[in-house]
Amino acid sequence: MDRLKRWLAPTTTVRAHCDLPCGVYDPEQARIEAESCFRIMEKYQANSDETFRSRAIVIKEERAELVKHHLDVLWHDYFKPEHVDKVPNLHDLFWNATKAASKVKASVDPADGRKLLDLIDQVDAAWKATGGEEKTRVAGRPG
Amino acid sequence: MDRLKRWLAPTTTVRAHCDLPCGVYDPEQARIEAESCFRIMEKYQANSDETFRSRAIVIKEERAELVKHHLDVLWHDYFKPEHVDKVPNLHDLFWNATKAASKVKASVDPADGRKLLDLIDQVDAAWKATGGEEKTRVAGRPG
Amino acid sequence: MDRLKRWLAPTTTVRAHCDLPCGVYDPEQARIEAESCFRIMEKYQANSDETFRSRAIVIKEERAELVKHHLDVLWHDYFKPEHVDKVPNLHDLFWNATKAASKVKASVDPADGRKLLDLIDQVDAAWKATGGEEKTRVAGRPG
Amino acid sequence: MDRLKRWLAPTTTVRAHCDLPCGVYDPEQARIEAESCFRIMEKYQANSDETFRSRAIVIKEERAELVKHHLDVLWHDYFKPEHVDKVPNLHDLFWNATKAASKVKASVDPADGRKLLDLIDQVDAAWKATGGEEKTRVAGRPG
Amino acid sequence: MDRLKRWLAPTTTVRAHCDLPCGVYDPEQARIEAESCFRIMEKYQANSDETFRSRAIVIKEERAELVKHHLDVLWHDYFKPEHVDKVPNLHDLFWNATKAASKVKASVDPADGRKLLDLIDQVDAAWKATGGEEKTRVAGRPG
Amino acid sequence: MDRLKRWLAPTTTVRAHCDLPCGVYDPEQARIEAESCFRIMEKYQANSDETFRSRAIVIKEERAELVKHHLDVLWHDYFKPEHVDKVPNLHDLFWNATKAASKVKASVDPADGRKLLDLIDQVDAAWKATGGEEKTRVAGRPG
Repeated sequence: MDRLKRWLAPTTTVRAHCDLPCGVYDPEQARIEAESCFRIMEKYQANSDETFRSRAIVIKEERAELVKHHLDVLWHDYFKPEHVDKVPNLHDLFWNATKAASKVKASVDPADGRKLLDLIDQVDAAWKATGGEEKTRVAGRPG
Repeated sequence: MDRLKRWLAPTTTVRAHCDLPCGVYDPEQARIEAESCFRIMEKYQANSDETFRSRAIVIKEERAELVKHHLDVLWHDYFKPEHVDKVPNLHDLFWNATKAASKVKASVDPADGRKLLDLIDQVDAAWKATGGEEKTRVAGRPG
Repeated sequence: MDRLKRWLAPTTTVRAHCDLPCGVYDPEQARIEAESCFRIMEKYQANSDETFRSRAIVIKEERAELVKHHLDVLWHDYFKPEHVDKVPNLHDLFWNATKAASKVKASVDPADGRKLLDLIDQVDAAWKATGGEEKTRVAGRPG
Repeated sequence: MDRLKRWLAPTTTVRAHCDLPCGVYDPEQARIEAESCFRIMEKYQANSDETFRSRAIVIKEERAELVKHHLDVLWHDYFKPEHVDKVPNLHDLFWNATKAASKVKASVDPADGRKLLDLIDQVDAAWKATGGEEKTRVAGRPG
Repeated sequence: MDRLKRWLAPTTTVRAHCDLPCGVYDPEQARIEAESCFRIMEKYQANSDETFRSRAIVIKEERAELVKHHLDVLWHDYFKPEHVDKVPNLHDLFWNATKAASKVKASVDPADGRKLLDLIDQVDAAWKATGGEEKTRVAGRPG
Repeated sequence: MDRLKRWLAPTTTVRAHCDLPCGVYDPEQARIEAESCFRIMEKYQANSDETFRSRAIVIKEERAELVKHHLDVLWHDYFKPEHVDKVPNLHDLFWNATKAASKVKASVDPADGRKLLDLIDQVDAAWKATGGEEKTRVAGRPG
C-alpha cells in the first residue's frame, strides 16, 4: 500500500511534463562521463606506458562521445521553447559545452576536462532553474 | 589558483584507488536508466495507442539493457574482493538486480520497475558503504 | 603520377579547414536517414500487418536517431562561430531540425517526415552558404 | 495540397521497388565515410603527435567499419539477382571493395584510401546502372 | 611450462595465416545468433501476447543483424581469393545467406529461420573445407 | 516432412526452459572473442609497428568488452537459482572471469589471455553440468 502510494504519487505531477521517451533527464549522466574524461587525462599525464596511453585515448574518445550524446538529448528533448526565457544563453551554452567535449577528445590536458565539467555544471544549473529536477526524476531515491 | 587546487586535490587521493578505465563509478547511471524504464511502464499503462506502445517496448528494452550494463561495470570493476566483508550479499544483490532488469524488459508492470529501483538503491548503499562516493567522483560538483 | 596529383591536390586546400575527426561533413548523411524515415511512414500507412508495423516502428526509431546524430555532428563540429554571421538562425534551425527528428520517432504521419526533410534541406543550404561543399568533400567523386 | 502531391508522387513508383527496411539506398553513405578515412590518412602522414596519431587510428577504424557496413547493406538488400545481368562483376566488385576497406583499417597510406574511393565509385556506377538513384531516393532534394 | 608450451604451440602455425584483426573466425557466431532468431520465431507463433510479440520482433531484428555482421566478416576477411577454387559458389552462398537473414528480419515463420540455419551450415562446411577450423581457432578448448 | 520433424522436435523440450530473449546460450560466444584477445596479444608481442600496436589495443578493447557482455548474459539470464547447487562457486567463477576480461583489456601479455580462456572453459563446464547444451542449442547442427 505504501509502495503503491510511492509510485503513484510522482506520476500525476510527471505525466503532464514528459512524453515518450520517458521524460527522465539529468545532466548527471553527462557529468559522470565527463569526470571519466577528466580522470583519464590526469592518468595519461601520470603514466608514460605506451599501452596505457593508447587505451586512455580510446576510452576518452568513447566517454567524450557519450558526454556529447547526453548533452544532445537534453538540448533536443528536455529543453523547450518556453525555457529560453529562463535560460537566454541556452543555445550558446550547449554549443560551447559540446565543442568543449570535442576538444576533450583531442586534448590530454586535464584543464580542458575541467572546462567541460564547468560547462556541464552550467547546464545542470539551467536544468534546475527550469524545474528539471522535480519534473523529471522519480521520487524516493537516496539523496 | 583555486581551480588549480580544486583539480589537483582529488588526484592524489584517487590515483591510489582506480585504474583505467578512469575509476569513476556511480550507481546513479543505472538508477537514471531504471527510472526511464519505470516511467515508460507507467506511460504504457496509461496509453493504448499502438505506435506509442510499440515504441515503449523498444525504448524500455534499450534502457533496461543500459541498466544491466551499468550494474555489470560496477560489479566487474568497482567492487573488489576486500569489499565482500562490508557487503556480504554482494553477488546475490547484483544477481537479483540484473535479473530484475531482465524482468523489466519483459514486463509492463510498473511494480517490476519499482522493484528494480529498490535493488539499485541497495547497490547504491553498498557503493557508499565501501567509500565509493568519496573515492570515485570528482570533487566540486553541484550537490 | 596522375593519381598522386589527384590526392595531393585537395589536401592543400583542405588541411587549413578541418581537424581530426577528418573534416568531412555532409548533410546528405542526415538526409538519407530522414528519407528512410519518410518512406517507412508511407509504408506504415499502406500496410496493416502487425509484424510489419512493429518493425517499421523499430527501424524508424533507429533511423531517426541517426538523423539526430548526423545533425549533431554538423552543429558541434562543422559550424564555427564565424559562420553565425552567414547563418543567423543557425541554432534555431538545428534545434527545430532535431526536435522534428524526435517528432518523427513518435509519429507515423509522412507529413512529419517531410517536415524533417525540409529542415535538413535548410541545413544543407547553410552548409553550402558557408562553403561546406568545397571545403569538406574530397574532389573527384561522381556528380 | 502541393505538399500532398509532392510526397504522394514518388510513392507510387517506389513502392514497387523496395520493402522494409525502407528501400532508400545510396553509395554516398559509404563514400562519405571512405572520404573520412582518406583524410585521416593524409592527416596522419602530416602529423607526428602521439595523441593525434592514436586518435587517427581509432577513428579510421570506426569509419572504415561504417564503410563496410554501408557496402554490405547495398550488396545484401539493394542488389537483386536480376541486376547481375547489368553488373556481371557485382560480387567481385563488392568483395574487392570490402577487402579494400579492411586494408584501409590496417594502412595509413592515403593511396589505399584512394583505392577504396575508386571502388566505391564503381559501386556507385553499378547502383546508377540499375536505376538505383531514381528508384531509391526521395524526390525534391537539392541537387 | 606445460601452459607455456600450450600457448606457444599454435602460434607458429597461426601467424602465417592471419593478420589483425586477430585471425579468429568461426561460423558458430552466426549460427548461434541464427538459432536465436529461429527460437524467437517459434515463440512468436506460440504466444499471442502483444508485449511479448513486440519484443520478439525487436530482438529478432537485432539478432538477424548480428547474423549478417558475422557472415560479412567471414566473407570480407576470412575467405581469400585462393579459397574460391575449393568453394566455387562462395559468393552466391554468402549472398543467399545474407538475403536469408534479411528475410528472417521480416518473417515470423520458423521455416525461414531454418532455411537460414541450413545456409549457415553450408558456410560452416566451406570454412572447414578451407582449413578454417585448424587455422583460426586456439588449441586446447573443450570439444 | 523430415525437416518439419527436425524443427518441431526440439521445441517441446526447449519451451519449458527458456523465455524471450530466445533461450539460446553458449559460452562459445565468449570463448571466440577471448581467443581473439589472446591472438591479438601474441601478435602485439611479435610486431613493434606503431600503427599495428595502436590497432591491436583498440580491437582488443572491443573484443574483451564483448567477452564481458557474453559472460554477463550467461550469468544474468541462463543461470538460475536452482543451478547454484550444481555449481557452488558460480558467482566467484563469473566474477573472476569478468575481472580477468578487464585485465585482458589492460594487458598485452598472452598469459593473461590464456587465463581468461581457462576461466571461460570453467564456465563452459558449468553450462554443460547444468544441461545447457541440450537445453539451449537447436538440434541438427554440424558437430
